[in-house]
Amino acid sequence: MGNKTDVAVIVGSGSDLALVSETIETLKEFDLSYSLNIASAHRNTQHLKQCIQGAESAGVKVFIAAAGMAAALPGVVASETILPVIGIPVEGKNLSSFDSLFSIVQMPKGVPVATVAVGKAGAINAAVLAVQIIAVANGDLKEKLAIYKNKMAENVVKEDLKLQKDGIIKYIESLKK
Amino acid sequence: MGNKTDVAVIVGSGSDLALVSETIETLKEFDLSYSLNIASAHRNTQHLKQCIQGAESAGVKVFIAAAGMAAALPGVVASETILPVIGIPVEGKNLSSFDSLFSIVQMPKGVPVATVAVGKAGAINAAVLAVQIIAVANGDLKEKLAIYKNKMAENVVKEDLKLQKDGIIKYIESLKK
Amino acid sequence: MGNKTDVAVIVGSGSDLALVSETIETLKEFDLSYSLNIASAHRNTQHLKQCIQGAESAGVKVFIAAAGMAAALPGVVASETILPVIGIPVEGKNLSSFDSLFSIVQMPKGVPVATVAVGKAGAINAAVLAVQIIAVANGDLKEKLAIYKNKMAENVVKEDLKLQKDGIIKYIESLKK
Amino acid sequence: MGNKTDVAVIVGSGSDLALVSETIETLKEFDLSYSLNIASAHRNTQHLKQCIQGAESAGVKVFIAAAGMAAALPGVVASETILPVIGIPVEGKNLSSFDSLFSIVQMPKGVPVATVAVGKAGAINAAVLAVQIIAVANGDLKEKLAIYKNKMAENVVKEDLKLQKDGIIKYIESLKK
Amino acid sequence: MGNKTDVAVIVGSGSDLALVSETIETLKEFDLSYSLNIASAHRNTQHLKQCIQGAESAGVKVFIAAAGMAAALPGVVASETILPVIGIPVEGKNLSSFDSLFSIVQMPKGVPVATVAVGKAGAINAAVLAVQIIAVANGDLKEKLAIYKNKMAENVVKEDLKLQKDGIIKYIESLKK
Amino acid sequence: MGNKTDVAVIVGSGSDLALVSETIETLKEFDLSYSLNIASAHRNTQHLKQCIQGAESAGVKVFIAAAGMAAALPGVVASETILPVIGIPVEGKNLSSFDSLFSIVQMPKGVPVATVAVGKAGAINAAVLAVQIIAVANGDLKEKLAIYKNKMAENVVKEDLKLQKDGIIKYIESLKK
Amino acid sequence: MGNKTDVAVIVGSGSDLALVSETIETLKEFDLSYSLNIASAHRNTQHLKQCIQGAESAGVKVFIAAAGMAAALPGVVASETILPVIGIPVEGKNLSSFDSLFSIVQMPKGVPVATVAVGKAGAINAAVLAVQIIAVANGDLKEKLAIYKNKMAENVVKEDLKLQKDGIIKYIESLKK
Amino acid sequence: MGNKTDVAVIVGSGSDLALVSETIETLKEFDLSYSLNIASAHRNTQHLKQCIQGAESAGVKVFIAAAGMAAALPGVVASETILPVIGIPVEGKNLSSFDSLFSIVQMPKGVPVATVAVGKAGAINAAVLAVQIIAVANGDLKEKLAIYKNKMAENVVKEDLKLQKDGIIKYIESLKK
Repeated sequence: MGNKTDVAVIVGSGSDLALVSETIETLKEFDLSYSLNIASAHRNTQHLKQCIQGAESAGVKVFIAAAGMAAALPGVVASETILPVIGIPVEGKNLSSFDSLFSIVQMPKGVPVATVAVGKAGAINAAVLAVQIIAVANGDLKEKLAIYKNKMAENVVKEDLKLQKDGIIKYIESLKK
Repeated sequence: MGNKTDVAVIVGSGSDLALVSETIETLKEFDLSYSLNIASAHRNTQHLKQCIQGAESAGVKVFIAAAGMAAALPGVVASETILPVIGIPVEGKNLSSFDSLFSIVQMPKGVPVATVAVGKAGAINAAVLAVQIIAVANGDLKEKLAIYKNKMAENVVKEDLKLQKDGIIKYIESLKK
Repeated sequence: MGNKTDVAVIVGSGSDLALVSETIETLKEFDLSYSLNIASAHRNTQHLKQCIQGAESAGVKVFIAAAGMAAALPGVVASETILPVIGIPVEGKNLSSFDSLFSIVQMPKGVPVATVAVGKAGAINAAVLAVQIIAVANGDLKEKLAIYKNKMAENVVKEDLKLQKDGIIKYIESLKK
Repeated sequence: MGNKTDVAVIVGSGSDLALVSETIETLKEFDLSYSLNIASAHRNTQHLKQCIQGAESAGVKVFIAAAGMAAALPGVVASETILPVIGIPVEGKNLSSFDSLFSIVQMPKGVPVATVAVGKAGAINAAVLAVQIIAVANGDLKEKLAIYKNKMAENVVKEDLKLQKDGIIKYIESLKK
Repeated sequence: MGNKTDVAVIVGSGSDLALVSETIETLKEFDLSYSLNIASAHRNTQHLKQCIQGAESAGVKVFIAAAGMAAALPGVVASETILPVIGIPVEGKNLSSFDSLFSIVQMPKGVPVATVAVGKAGAINAAVLAVQIIAVANGDLKEKLAIYKNKMAENVVKEDLKLQKDGIIKYIESLKK
Repeated sequence: MGNKTDVAVIVGSGSDLALVSETIETLKEFDLSYSLNIASAHRNTQHLKQCIQGAESAGVKVFIAAAGMAAALPGVVASETILPVIGIPVEGKNLSSFDSLFSIVQMPKGVPVATVAVGKAGAINAAVLAVQIIAVANGDLKEKLAIYKNKMAENVVKEDLKLQKDGIIKYIESLKK
Repeated sequence: MGNKTDVAVIVGSGSDLALVSETIETLKEFDLSYSLNIASAHRNTQHLKQCIQGAESAGVKVFIAAAGMAAALPGVVASETILPVIGIPVEGKNLSSFDSLFSIVQMPKGVPVATVAVGKAGAINAAVLAVQIIAVANGDLKEKLAIYKNKMAENVVKEDLKLQKDGIIKYIESLKK
Repeated sequence: MGNKTDVAVIVGSGSDLALVSETIETLKEFDLSYSLNIASAHRNTQHLKQCIQGAESAGVKVFIAAAGMAAALPGVVASETILPVIGIPVEGKNLSSFDSLFSIVQMPKGVPVATVAVGKAGAINAAVLAVQIIAVANGDLKEKLAIYKNKMAENVVKEDLKLQKDGIIKYIESLKK
């Protein structure tokens, strides 16, 4: 993590890191620099503020915050910055994860959190969305996104061809490996 | 609101005051002093902190915070104080008020919010709970609570007697007046 | 709507325009140029594609799409562009609006939609989020956001002072006017 | 898969094939010809269109589309054809599968998706429903359906007789084998 | 209602007819003949069976059944016929209409009900789906569907043009008339 | 209310009486004697016990208890008697009435509450269920139930005939009168 | 299962028998005679009717029906008898079992199903409720219920004493054995 | 458990003790004395009353009650005391634990239950909330809370530093140990 940081990723608890490792991997695919912090809107708001200010000093362009349950973290980050904040609802054991999703997406007017899907798909998409946001003013990154999108599109065709060639039984078998 | 304040009531928006007026009325019934502030966990955390610190300087014993949607307010108050914090989920137009309830009750370990019912019953009960908490070390208040509880119990009997006397049709009519 | 367009707003139905007028008002507050189209992911995908391509030709930087029920619109816009797409779940009569929220936020990996709150708060926040995204590479807009945020913060204080001065009853009365 | 195809089955992801294998098995029971494709409403709409057009060229009569999460696939297929489209909500890890069900069933007026149950029962029923639809103008298939229905009815009686003969304990034991 | 009937529409209660009038209107648009009955899976199964058998004798091709709450009607119709059965979940006052939707869509394997959206959109779509099903073996009807679909597609463009011409304020005004 | 009482109806609050008047009307249709009390599991358990004991002394055979929100009343009645207890979930303003339904139906093993539908249908059905329970050992009441059931069945036919005669438009009109 | 049957238990599928074995065990504890059938409201209504009529001929007093998903079985049984019908919602893999609960409890007016808790507690309570219903006119059974209730009450005290004696750690250990 | 008891913990069933052991551990951390009872609002109200009265005689200041499903226990405790009652919703197998949460939090006016999160976080927070309540009039305990809060805040920083030092992969590995 050099002098400049593109994306600041903040998790509410160490136990959220397994999920967020998907975010990090995706940011790396796009060669974005990032910072990663454990911080808490409920246990240490001062440290959280320092993380936010540190990230802003490092020239961060987008925040990503992941939290579960009464997930105040993304909203509190959004209250402290004018930069875009992306929120990842961490899946929980109870209440079907309605708690983390609703706590993140239902922000009051004036303070948006860009919410993505609960769990793994959301963890990856938070990174893709961060890339899309930075790419708005970055032609190189736009190109990478176009390549990423094309690859995704091609992958669908590839998988379909594999299915046509192998048939459903062999295809399903191959997933288990 | 004199020098000493028993309960600090904080609402996330002016539009929550109609609901919280029920809280205030109940606190007054018990002759508790209170402060009442509009503050926001998402729009002005500095002002919120000042409200909290001001209340603590005034010797406040319990916080009550009401908020709707992604209701971070009660949890953020709880992050800034070691005093008990009571959260009132404000009813909303969408998502059946699951959003405000889950955002308030599902706090992570170490930072509880004492959550009461959504809407009017919760607004009244937040005050009663505050009274109960302060009464733990206050014999006079305990007595008032006992009287309140007795009155409630007697009221049930009174209503039942009225029903026995008037019959269901006349009773229902009387509710409409 | 001149030659250059900053934000392309797309609604799934004319009946969504009342909600989205809040989005438009907010974009105007920030002097952003915008296009506004009625288009449909379920009734006319060709026209939708033309809207998207037209917007991209006009140099649009962010898409905002609002839809209700099985709200595929934001996701289908996201499938056709590498620009950030913001989704507004339109409130519905049934299923507590879980349908539009879940249809928009639960996107599969690789194709994020930046989801905001259901209904009016979301309509305003979609615009604010679009401004934040464009401001990442636009110092002037960043300044406007800082002013907007300050004004919001000051407004909380102003409302609180008004409450302290007027008291709760007069304050509630003033809301009804 | 010969020249003529009765039913076109489309899944949003290779991971949905295990579920859809139940659909395929049931179509085979009725000697219907089918095509099976992996296609995506969010990752490659062009390929999806080709699948749809290819199926229509092959004389397909009914579409079956299975997808999870923000399951736009069945609705987007429905937007591209005037043939009946059956949607299978794939069960997910989060949100109790409300997301896939609501994303598929809550289609706007004019573009129906015939939605079946979430998961395995739905996967089988999608095939049965396709058979019923094709049988409307096909006496042979109608007869097969009558036989299928009779067999189902007889099976209930057989199971009941087995229960009467063996008793509940032995019956439950036999299920475990 | 002549000798031949294309579609048999059955409602669980007279109070569901206001909703189902949308279904009837749409069937008429396509010049389909229909029968319409009030019948009940819970109050008079014999009469329900007669309705079903009467419809089958009249050569009906598709059933449409609408019901609310514990909406067994569509499923019980499906148990008595091998024809396709379309279920319309009627919106209710309680439980956010989850009850009627889940009671209709979650059919066990072997006995599908083709479920459409809750309420008005579903009422219209039930008819469109019935048309699509009958059109599978009916070229004339297929053409009508193509025209219907084109008109829908053109309507989107028309509304969009109206919006471009009138602007959002005038457009919203026009909706109120 | 004479010496003998067949059914004891208890409501948690006077505001539930409008709903329960439907229960009373239905009990009267079957000439069952009843008692009706306002009592509370949360405000006056002693009075509740007296109501229960009074009812048992009057030879009551079935209890019906109606309550909303955290509806403990039916369960607490069930804890105090070995007679069957029927619970009516009263509809509420928030949480889609999930609260009253789940609080009543999810009783732990050993202490059942026979739960009926939320709101008006449940209020009527609580009475019908009470009649069914008492009729188990009462041939006269069984006959009345058979007549009630026949009338219900005939009513469906009557309504259907009215619809066949008048047509849908006139039928809907007649509902508005 | 002799000549006389007290309770007729019907399950929608053989896979529900594991759950319903709890019902049977509890009926046996009270020395009630019972019949047990696999029958289906969706696959074989004729056989279901025979089961119901057979049970009525055997003098059955109460029906218990267990079913999952779109659980029409209890309601359809209720449509065919004037005897009390108890419904057990079978827990399912999807939709958090809201489907079976709502399909059973939300019956329309005139046709109640006495609904108990989802899953195991409900399976036991269905039996206890059946006993309570039959006991209304059976002094011996009333006595058994009183003993059952006393034993339950004593058991709570016993467990509490065990906890006081052993302490929490040893108590929890003993549960694992 | 000496003569004086600070907190009375009551569980609805022995199977809730594993969860509540977290509550006990936390109370011990703060050197609070406690009593622990198995009692039931549905199986033995007399014993429950004795537990409550015994606790009050021992000078208890706060009640904590944990229960699952139709969790009446906390509310019934609240009906018998004027002391603050904290309710822990025990997680269940069905209905996503909405049942226990709603049964505890949705108390009617006048009888609050201070509700905490479902499951483990709630079990710990019930104890912390009890400490906060008692600390209102206890300077020593206030200090302990301040230390607890500081330690929590420091822990966040420690974990963050560990993450900065070790990197995400090593950090995640360490969690598995």
